[in-house]
Amino acid sequence: MNDKQEKFISLAHGNGGRYMRELIDDLFARHLANPLLNTQNDAASLTLEQTEIAFTTDGFTVNPLEFPGGTIGSLAIHGTVNDLAVAGAIPKYLSLNAFIEEGMSFTQLERIVKSMAQAASEAGVAIVTGDTKVVPRGEGAGVFFATSGIGIKTNNISLGMSQIKTGDKILVNGTLGDHGTAVMLAREQFGLKGDLQSDAASVLAYTQSLLSLEGLRFMRDPTRGGLASVCNEISRAIKQEVHLFQTEIPIHDQVESVCEILGYDPLYLACEGRVVAVIAEEQAQQALEIWQAIEGGENASIIGEIKAGDAYVVLQTELGGERFLEELEDDPLPRIC
Amino acid sequence: MNDKQEKFISLAHGNGGRYMRELIDDLFARHLANPLLNTQNDAASLTLEQTEIAFTTDGFTVNPLEFPGGTIGSLAIHGTVNDLAVAGAIPKYLSLNAFIEEGMSFTQLERIVKSMAQAASEAGVAIVTGDTKVVPRGEGAGVFFATSGIGIKTNNISLGMSQIKTGDKILVNGTLGDHGTAVMLAREQFGLKGDLQSDAASVLAYTQSLLSLEGLRFMRDPTRGGLASVCNEISRAIKQEVHLFQTEIPIHDQVESVCEILGYDPLYLACEGRVVAVIAEEQAQQALEIWQAIEGGENASIIGEIKAGDAYVVLQTELGGERFLEELEDDPLPRIC
Repeated sequence: MNDKQEKFISLAHGNGGRYMRELIDDLFARHLANPLLNTQNDAASLTLEQTEIAFTTDGFTVNPLEFPGGTIGSLAIHGTVNDLAVAGAIPKYLSLNAFIEEGMSFTQLERIVKSMAQAASEAGVAIVTGDTKVVPRGEGAGVFFATSGIGIKTNNISLGMSQIKTGDKILVNGTLGDHGTAVMLAREQFGLKGDLQSDAASVLAYTQSLLSLEGLRFMRDPTRGGLASVCNEISRAIKQEVHLFQTEIPIHDQVESVCEILGYDPLYLACEGRVVAVIAEEQAQQALEIWQAIEGGENASIIGEIKAGDAYVVLQTELGGERFLEELEDDPLPRIC
Repeated sequence: MNDKQEKFISLAHGNGGRYMRELIDDLFARHLANPLLNTQNDAASLTLEQTEIAFTTDGFTVNPLEFPGGTIGSLAIHGTVNDLAVAGAIPKYLSLNAFIEEGMSFTQLERIVKSMAQAASEAGVAIVTGDTKVVPRGEGAGVFFATSGIGIKTNNISLGMSQIKTGDKILVNGTLGDHGTAVMLAREQFGLKGDLQSDAASVLAYTQSLLSLEGLRFMRDPTRGGLASVCNEISRAIKQEVHLFQTEIPIHDQVESVCEILGYDPLYLACEGRVVAVIAEEQAQQALEIWQAIEGGENASIIGEIKAGDAYVVLQTELGGERFLEELEDDPLPRIC
């Protein structure tokens, strides 16, 4: 076949035979190569550093598949890396599933796998096992990924919503809603354009930097449903009020403008490189300074606190008023991550 | 809402808000409940018995979603359990990703998740972390699953194609092509009907039973592409001839008839509860007897051997002739697993 000719995924690329082997070896394994990935084996054999681990999984269906600041491939790495990171673990090994739709272009798939390889390399993780399935045209949407990850727990700190206490402070490491807005703009369905980049990135540096603080209670990456959904989960779990200060919440000007035009609330939009931490009041300032000193953490902010009260999320507005941030019902933006 | 009213998956079931929580808690977590599964956490915290593990992943897109002998849910458990089992590991912890299409019926999804729970319980594995995504109508096909699994390696035996030697025997634990044929019949597109059941099941009893045999070289579950594809992989890896005896290969009468009518070769059809083992000649008979003594292993058979020669798979036919089993090019049956 002429290499300059555009190639497309066919059903034969999913049948267990020669084409599938070529797809896996020439595209996935070539870019994602590492000593532990052996496409001849059903399972990877690993020797862990210890027996205390974190294990997580995430699925990715973002549309469009490529957007400013990332692709579905880099997202599939960052998402699972971040789920491990907020659990206080160091991400090590990932598995990768690809559901590819018949007719997808090899060239685009290769760009996506390359961005995946780069994200994995930056986060220090190895993809050690994988599987590809090809679904007939019309039964997929380009490509969906699922990644699972194993991380090593290096610290005995016990994190969880159950650790949260009245008076604790809520921190975020940067601006909110960038990912959701960037993907929305990339769809071009609203006739809006902008140079906003997704915030998609590993949050490992942020999560690791706080693990030595005894007052750290809980961390979470505010993806689907955004900050408001994380806060709703917290308030429901601890049956106390989560109080947010609007003036302290970092939001990019462009996100603010786009949301105003389209009627979205940035507090409900997905981030893919942000982390929300709940920390004891006496260590909140120290945590903030640690985060602000990390490259990219300049906009970190203490955005709220836990107050005795009922299980509500309350936003204290710029004008001094208060408004409830309800749990999400309708989906503002399907296929955002 | 009236419980008797049929409910359907909507995009709001994927948005990180209330509906998603209900879908996860009331449907997935309720049926898959175990002490390690906590839907409030991004990652499961696990303490492994040891640091030597196997890690694998598999995606599932079978159509129809339910078929005689299983569902896409039970398949998603058995497939990953079996990938760990053939690596010589004992499967322990699974992650689960669900890509659900908008409009799918709750009732059907619940049946599928129940069959998944039953398969997990039978195989002794716990689903400890999961994620659901809902994709808009027309961008999926009911539901796709991806499962990743962690297994414990209890034995130092080194398995792999590189261990295979000339003279080794090839064993299979039962009839071939049942799964592929059962799924094909369930599609009813050929106007054929039958009572054939998929062979979908855990192969752990078979794989564990051989681990004490020093002569065991390699095990593989012949899923996509069937026995012929596994044998092609072996012959290509070791650059020797894989020689199969047609008269010794167990094939269900009904599979034989259906394949004859439709022009399929059962040796290329997927199995989901079968294992192919390569073992030193002097221990092959012992291995066969071990397998035949396992309930369901009555049809186990020594079906071939490794011969010095070129990298071909040769079928010695009933009439004494020989025919090459080539590597698969076209997909005979898309969405079979």
